Amino acid sequence: MNQNCTALPKAELEALKVEYEAQYRKLADLKLSLNMARGKPAPTLLDLNADLFERMTDYTAADGTDCRNYGVLEGLPEMRQFFGSVLGIDPERIIVGGNASLNLMYDAIARLYCFGTSKTSAWSKEEKLKFLCPAPGYDRHFAITQSFGFEMIPVEMREDGPDMDKIEALVASDPAIKGIWCVPLYSNPQGICYSDEVVARLGKMKTAAPDFRIFWDNAYGVHHLYGKTKLADIFEACEKGGNPDRAYYFFSTSKITLPGAGVAMMAASIDERDFILKHMTIQTIGHDKINQLRTLRFLKDADGLAAQMEKLAVELRPKFEIVAATLERELGGSGLAKWTDPKGGYFVSLDTLDGCAKETLRLAKEAGVTMTGAGATFPLKNDPRDRNIRIAPTYPDCKELQQAMDLLCVCIKLAGVRKLLGEY
Amino acid sequence: MNQNCTALPKAELEALKVEYEAQYRKLADLKLSLNMARGKPAPTLLDLNADLFERMTDYTAADGTDCRNYGVLEGLPEMRQFFGSVLGIDPERIIVGGNASLNLMYDAIARLYCFGTSKTSAWSKEEKLKFLCPAPGYDRHFAITQSFGFEMIPVEMREDGPDMDKIEALVASDPAIKGIWCVPLYSNPQGICYSDEVVARLGKMKTAAPDFRIFWDNAYGVHHLYGKTKLADIFEACEKGGNPDRAYYFFSTSKITLPGAGVAMMAASIDERDFILKHMTIQTIGHDKINQLRTLRFLKDADGLAAQMEKLAVELRPKFEIVAATLERELGGSGLAKWTDPKGGYFVSLDTLDGCAKETLRLAKEAGVTMTGAGATFPLKNDPRDRNIRIAPTYPDCKELQQAMDLLCVCIKLAGVRKLLGEY
Repeated sequence: MNQNCTALPKAELEALKVEYEAQYRKLADLKLSLNMARGKPAPTLLDLNADLFERMTDYTAADGTDCRNYGVLEGLPEMRQFFGSVLGIDPERIIVGGNASLNLMYDAIARLYCFGTSKTSAWSKEEKLKFLCPAPGYDRHFAITQSFGFEMIPVEMREDGPDMDKIEALVASDPAIKGIWCVPLYSNPQGICYSDEVVARLGKMKTAAPDFRIFWDNAYGVHHLYGKTKLADIFEACEKGGNPDRAYYFFSTSKITLPGAGVAMMAASIDERDFILKHMTIQTIGHDKINQLRTLRFLKDADGLAAQMEKLAVELRPKFEIVAATLERELGGSGLAKWTDPKGGYFVSLDTLDGCAKETLRLAKEAGVTMTGAGATFPLKNDPRDRNIRIAPTYPDCKELQQAMDLLCVCIKLAGVRKLLGEY
Repeated sequence: MNQNCTALPKAELEALKVEYEAQYRKLADLKLSLNMARGKPAPTLLDLNADLFERMTDYTAADGTDCRNYGVLEGLPEMRQFFGSVLGIDPERIIVGGNASLNLMYDAIARLYCFGTSKTSAWSKEEKLKFLCPAPGYDRHFAITQSFGFEMIPVEMREDGPDMDKIEALVASDPAIKGIWCVPLYSNPQGICYSDEVVARLGKMKTAAPDFRIFWDNAYGVHHLYGKTKLADIFEACEKGGNPDRAYYFFSTSKITLPGAGVAMMAASIDERDFILKHMTIQTIGHDKINQLRTLRFLKDADGLAAQMEKLAVELRPKFEIVAATLERELGGSGLAKWTDPKGGYFVSLDTLDGCAKETLRLAKEAGVTMTGAGATFPLKNDPRDRNIRIAPTYPDCKELQQAMDLLCVCIKLAGVRKLLGEY
């Protein structure tokens, strides 16, 4: 346990500052060059997919479809069945996309903007558009709604999901609020899992907008590191709440097989699925069925997927443990930071003292470690308290990660005591 | 040479009708079940890609990029180089997409609609939108502009491209006309190739809309059956004409390698490329680089592509020759139809007597041969003279194709003499 810096007299802070500066210079002398900005899998994780690249001699789907040729817009039946069994979704609701669920999300917003929903008209015709953004959250979500001109309303995250009291109050009164971004399991960046109550309230809350949409990006839905965390069924919650069309569900194998060549999917109510397919059939003749077939033959079924996830977890657990152990050792009790302890997913979220995130990451970058930019986890990249840092431990190897974490901790401490000393 | 039916007295037409009815019944008794509705390659054509499915052990691009991971939004440098050398386009202009150029075209229209161009604002803000549709043309093009609410203006096709006198007059006076669909080489469905003069005039014509866009879908740009037909450089034509941002160029390997898993690309001026990438980087993290690598290793370079196209041509030439020979033998001189004689591409276009296309295709369908629907080659599926039929000879084998053509010719003759007899 470290001493609590926030309660120290100035002289002791000055002494700590000298100590941390020396530590910082020592680590800077290592001339590290590490990039931890994005949640990318390490080559060792990618190598677990070698069988995906075996020779392929049969291109035929279960129903006889020649997957080399055109067609099957909604995706191969066995691929939809697979996603359905893994996620507990009726395969009828599922549309298989290309290699990126982000692309499906962007296109969903674009479709709502240009054409509306199965029951309501184009969002572009409305004077003002707003979107709820639980924050800290995923920068690429926020970039989409920013690009389409939405006013983004940050909502605080709690231990079991976003602040539902605030959300219910907002959506009940403002018809311009059209939707919400959610990463319901092992949220990016905190690793928070939505409780059953939060899911139920999202499904049943009264919204002034009749076409309110939940963007349910279950990106880490199977990325358990220490046993399975259950997630309530958002479609069931919406149906029980009398809002059957409310949820759009997204998922992909990008962080299961290959980020660059995974298989993405979305799911929705049958009415919305029909509406989406009606537009998608004009957008494309069909997504890559060969990759669907390859991916499915590699993962096989829900059990095969679970086995693959466990292989990934074997690689990932030590990395998350390095992060947790280093933070606890260097910062535990110091009062200079608090952080999350995710049981799955891809990230750890850390809050410095107010006003210290930018300075911390500047110091880290100058010493050779690039982290996700300060503010990136908030809409418009604006972290009002300048304190959130996203740690992405998946790409570096364990040795590099340890070096990066050592450096990050020193930067947090140095920026923290300087802040306490009123130096910036 | 057949006798010219249009000049025959009624009694002789009645006799022909009896003869054609007998021929029709005989062919109907074969109980054929052939679908020639879409331009799909035959399995024998797809089999020429077997090497695409070899085991892959190296996933690294020339610049060291691990293609399994995220990134490289604009496409692998060597893939852009490849497309550039095949099409005579500066690789800097090229963005590699997913598996479908149609998707890139749809997204381009959606982007123009939502965000405009690098120099002008969103098309959705304008009161009225119109698009030029050389017709007969490609139904999926027309479906895109229909879906976004454009009024579509059909423009007649001539032997060397669309009617440029009409186009120049239209675009000069009407700022609502925002663009034109073009398949400049071996057009769908006629197989017409745009002359240098047409290309030059498209590039330099004065348009009332400052953001007029040419959608240059060079889908059959390398699909020569009898030696290379040259196509003038649309980018050069636009630059010479003082309209450097005017053309969006589309191409894909869908009908070279695999329709379901090809590699698509688009190209534009550098300003427009930057604008497109600025939006695309929000839409996706990157397209499938593994498929880019596979496709490139299979096709190798411009020479490798030419060798592959010649293999395809060996399969396709007999099919186009069956179509041409059967039409000439059965209908030549009859006055009941005229048709094109393409030197490449995927289709043959046939015009019956006015008002006979629907009836002809109804007869064919009843006897077991489904062709592309009557009217499909016109905006809103409305062929004002009900005469155009698209023949897609690529999918059936030669025996099936001969049967289908025999039947089609009988249907054209039967529908034609009945029309001349005033029966419908």
